[in-house]
Amino acid sequence: MAIKPRDLSKMIDHTLLSPTANVEEIKNLCQEAIRCKFAAVSVNPIFVPMCVKLLKGSSVKVGTVIGYPLGTSTTEAKAFQTRQVVKEGAQEIDMVVNMGAFKSGANDLVRGDVKAVVDAARISSLGPGALVKVIIETSYLSEEEIEIICKLAIEGGADFIQTSSEFAPTGATVDNVSLIRKLVGREIGVKASGNLTSIKEIISLLDAGANRFGTISSVRLFNTKKGKNIVEG
Amino acid sequence: MAIKPRDLSKMIDHTLLSPTANVEEIKNLCQEAIRCKFAAVSVNPIFVPMCVKLLKGSSVKVGTVIGYPLGTSTTEAKAFQTRQVVKEGAQEIDMVVNMGAFKSGANDLVRGDVKAVVDAARISSLGPGALVKVIIETSYLSEEEIEIICKLAIEGGADFIQTSSEFAPTGATVDNVSLIRKLVGREIGVKASGNLTSIKEIISLLDAGANRFGTISSVRLFNTKKGKNIVEG
Repeated sequence: MAIKPRDLSKMIDHTLLSPTANVEEIKNLCQEAIRCKFAAVSVNPIFVPMCVKLLKGSSVKVGTVIGYPLGTSTTEAKAFQTRQVVKEGAQEIDMVVNMGAFKSGANDLVRGDVKAVVDAARISSLGPGALVKVIIETSYLSEEEIEIICKLAIEGGADFIQTSSEFAPTGATVDNVSLIRKLVGREIGVKASGNLTSIKEIISLLDAGANRFGTISSVRLFNTKKGKNIVEG
Repeated sequence: MAIKPRDLSKMIDHTLLSPTANVEEIKNLCQEAIRCKFAAVSVNPIFVPMCVKLLKGSSVKVGTVIGYPLGTSTTEAKAFQTRQVVKEGAQEIDMVVNMGAFKSGANDLVRGDVKAVVDAARISSLGPGALVKVIIETSYLSEEEIEIICKLAIEGGADFIQTSSEFAPTGATVDNVSLIRKLVGREIGVKASGNLTSIKEIISLLDAGANRFGTISSVRLFNTKKGKNIVEG
């Protein structure tokens, strides 16, 4: 099987979530995403309206983050922020679970936190609402905990399980992506993220079951001649 | 001059903002804060109601964070989260500025972001409302930028300028605390934070002009015999 850059690029969330990211850098990010035909950009909430304008008419979706990177704001605040960005045109929401609640055994709160964001994301006057990726932050979880938290996220209505923010000690691994794919079946997406730095790594994670990838290194990685095969097999 | 632990301890925000912090750890934090007579605890928003109960009748204030640690949520979401925690009894708010807006030259947005949180913090049915510390994240700023951002924060109504979250490359230094104190005068508080690990460091920052300190190491640092002088001079 040969994987072409254009096949992989459609699974990339072109990501810039640095607190210092400015208007010029976000403009550049949008231009790069259009040129490389990435799935989406992933930007901080204040940049949503600008990205909606810049990406209008392209296939690139506007993605943003809720409770990022620690997931420690309240459920009500996460839902409020979600309603605002979806109203402004965000199409994809990457939310961080409330890890402190999970580590306290407050599973109902974790599920309800996801559900509140999903419910808020579905309400849009502009279309069908946004899809929701739930960042479970595998770095802090045992295999048993990954199983429980995936179940809670899906019960809450998650469209994707996402492995990582960029702020935990470790990001996506082949092992945790394989585990998550096995747990969630084929109906739910799996996004691998957290310091992905090579095409080889992304392909390993694709083989393990991921179907979306988040990285700030997207342009460097996909700056290959259009249509050139990355992997021949 | 001799500085006693009890004098310094009254200037300490006993801080636990890890995303994995759980109920037991927060209970422990509150007990330690009461025992050591710290100024406040600093916890994630979901733990505010619990801390309000645990600290009732003590001198320890309940502090929490808004837009932490990146400051990248929208102004409206920050104000919403502030209203909620103040209603629940939070007495001190540490908010993070919108650095992306500042780095884009959107000074009105930066000032308005602070003002919205300050306005929300002042409205409380439980008392005079909460005071607001504005985290300017000196790690990302030149001296000229520190000057501008302090001015914007004060115009927005800040009660304190705080140097740092724990998530930037560097925290408080004697140089930036001195600069901030010089800029803000005596009416505004200066909180030094970001990986403070020794009493010697805290005293240097006190001498430089800070009058509040945030550290997760507070108990270890202040676990001295009550009343024993730390510095004789």
